Amino acid sequence: MLYKKRLMTPGPTEVPPTVLAEAAKPIMHHRTPQFRKILTEVVAGLKRVFKTENDILIYPAAGTGAMEAAVVNLCSPGDHILVASCGNFGNRWTDIAKAYGVQSEHYEVAWGTPVDPQEIQKRLAADPAIKAVFTTLSETSTGIESDIKTIAGIVAKTPAVLVVDAISGLGAIPMKTDEWKADVVVAGSQKGLMIPPGLAIVSISAKAWELANVSKCPKYYFSWAKAQKAMKAEALADTPYTPSISLILQLAEALRLIEAEGLEAIWDRHARLAQATREAMKALGLKLYAPQQASNAVTAIYVPENVDVSKLFKTVRDVYGITLATGQGVAKGKIFRIGHLGYADDFDVIATVAAVERALLEQNYVLQIGQGVAAAEKVLFGR
Amino acid sequence: MLYKKRLMTPGPTEVPPTVLAEAAKPIMHHRTPQFRKILTEVVAGLKRVFKTENDILIYPAAGTGAMEAAVVNLCSPGDHILVASCGNFGNRWTDIAKAYGVQSEHYEVAWGTPVDPQEIQKRLAADPAIKAVFTTLSETSTGIESDIKTIAGIVAKTPAVLVVDAISGLGAIPMKTDEWKADVVVAGSQKGLMIPPGLAIVSISAKAWELANVSKCPKYYFSWAKAQKAMKAEALADTPYTPSISLILQLAEALRLIEAEGLEAIWDRHARLAQATREAMKALGLKLYAPQQASNAVTAIYVPENVDVSKLFKTVRDVYGITLATGQGVAKGKIFRIGHLGYADDFDVIATVAAVERALLEQNYVLQIGQGVAAAEKVLFGR
Repeated sequence: MLYKKRLMTPGPTEVPPTVLAEAAKPIMHHRTPQFRKILTEVVAGLKRVFKTENDILIYPAAGTGAMEAAVVNLCSPGDHILVASCGNFGNRWTDIAKAYGVQSEHYEVAWGTPVDPQEIQKRLAADPAIKAVFTTLSETSTGIESDIKTIAGIVAKTPAVLVVDAISGLGAIPMKTDEWKADVVVAGSQKGLMIPPGLAIVSISAKAWELANVSKCPKYYFSWAKAQKAMKAEALADTPYTPSISLILQLAEALRLIEAEGLEAIWDRHARLAQATREAMKALGLKLYAPQQASNAVTAIYVPENVDVSKLFKTVRDVYGITLATGQGVAKGKIFRIGHLGYADDFDVIATVAAVERALLEQNYVLQIGQGVAAAEKVLFGR
Repeated sequence: MLYKKRLMTPGPTEVPPTVLAEAAKPIMHHRTPQFRKILTEVVAGLKRVFKTENDILIYPAAGTGAMEAAVVNLCSPGDHILVASCGNFGNRWTDIAKAYGVQSEHYEVAWGTPVDPQEIQKRLAADPAIKAVFTTLSETSTGIESDIKTIAGIVAKTPAVLVVDAISGLGAIPMKTDEWKADVVVAGSQKGLMIPPGLAIVSISAKAWELANVSKCPKYYFSWAKAQKAMKAEALADTPYTPSISLILQLAEALRLIEAEGLEAIWDRHARLAQATREAMKALGLKLYAPQQASNAVTAIYVPENVDVSKLFKTVRDVYGITLATGQGVAKGKIFRIGHLGYADDFDVIATVAAVERALLEQNYVLQIGQGVAAAEKVLFGR
């Protein structure tokens, strides 16, 4: 039986055909006006997606590399920071801080619930030495969307800077860097930006540069100052070390697709796909892992009793061709996750809901055939 | 006028068509048996190219990232190391060490000349606290090939480990990791491995792991222990953070091409292309920048008097379509460089020599037309 491959994970996400095609073009040299013009345009396009006039730097790295870059460029050993975590990726901020001798006040909420901005305000007031607050826009492990707007409003009134891991949120759900006053925003390439993994991107405000200028954590490859110097030395952008040329060319094409669709239209699409997924799962009698502040990038769903989650996941992937995600950390074995992120449309969601229905039926889960898909259609068709 | 694009730089190098095509395939998820099987095969293939049974780790990063990884995983602040440098990339070892508070004894020779293994022996004897020696296989900035075999023989008799930047040499010129006893070997993707930039690779000996196990430099993204744990936890290889999926697929295909041609045949091809390039340049009356221990990956040539190197470079690139490299650091303005590295054949070298002849003629440099190409042909045709 032919089942096409569909990638419905919260990263990597499907890469549009014209973006794939860019990588098949002959490689060009990076120290040329041709490439540097493309890099310059990519930076300008990224600023529109980040909704910022702040500086943008791009590293060949996984998203975690840009997270480490934020810690080592903003902090000095012994500095106090506040990490507001609601899952696996929020916890990574504290892990990185520990590796560099930075004192992390670790505020972690129960997985499946969002961090409370008031708690951040309280902890900032309690420790005026806190230099930076690190948190997560869309927590991939739990499907929570943090209220960055409120958090940023609180942090902006203090001397601390706000650092947002927007890796799986940027280009999918609202992230208004300048309007909200988010000082440092970190992104990855393989999520809403719709290209393969391998690029880590960061935006840096003037307030963040002030901290960076006195930071004493050791760094070389991830030094913002070095990257900024190459980026700004001449009219055309450049990098201190060899950039991921093919991924930059792919990003240029992905940014053209984003401009053509429009960022607000993309946010609306993600909201619609997420709402359809949530309603479909509820119609199937399943329970959402994160019922409040659910992220429009990924939906986490409790596995019902008497359903084998590993078997469900493998049936959907290996028989029906649709890759979902399972649970991480404390949610392992308890949930599965559907990514509706990046290059995904209404009919991808319908196909995914149908495949979940089918795999549930095969495990003798009681449902009326089509009830999940019907609920998705109601949302998607606006009826 | 149509002139095809040819990349004759010491990296990035041309990517073979079947390797380009791999990147145009739909992206697959990395936490799947399908991808992990490919990653496992890639590691096995890399071991054959490194000629090692040592552990191999792969990072999404520029080659400099793997250099930093070697420093921060082997050293502690205050440690003594010896850097043996013959150019820009050798100097980078000391720059990285300084960033982490590691004390670098910096042994740098005049550019265009090789480091002296006896000097390394002398300095190791003078400071028994030296924990590691860092040097370069093929110094891209000057076109020198270091005598790693002799250096490794010297270092192996001491408690120090040898770290070799083989970024622009691996897969082009001999690097016999285990036979020579090179403890840590660092490579990049965009050179002899013939794929786009974005992967940094490192091999690690048991002697190097002993140092790594007590290293106190801070690290997170580049931690060998973390990467090793993911690589070895199960039968199939894995990575701690999202790998550069598309580049790994391309590397799998490039390794198939390398196996098909044979590593020794590839070394022979590079020796022939390099010899042809050197003979052609000499026949044109040009002087080699590195007449002794010239690297078979890249040839550096002095710009003759009354020739404008910037104009020569731009004519060859922008008119005739062939990208060469200019000089770096102290060699800037004095030399140009021809890469004959990776996916390059006899006729690429002939085309390049012809383009250099043509651009020289256009600057009224006196030469007999075809004299460079004839010298190249003599070598290439074995006559």
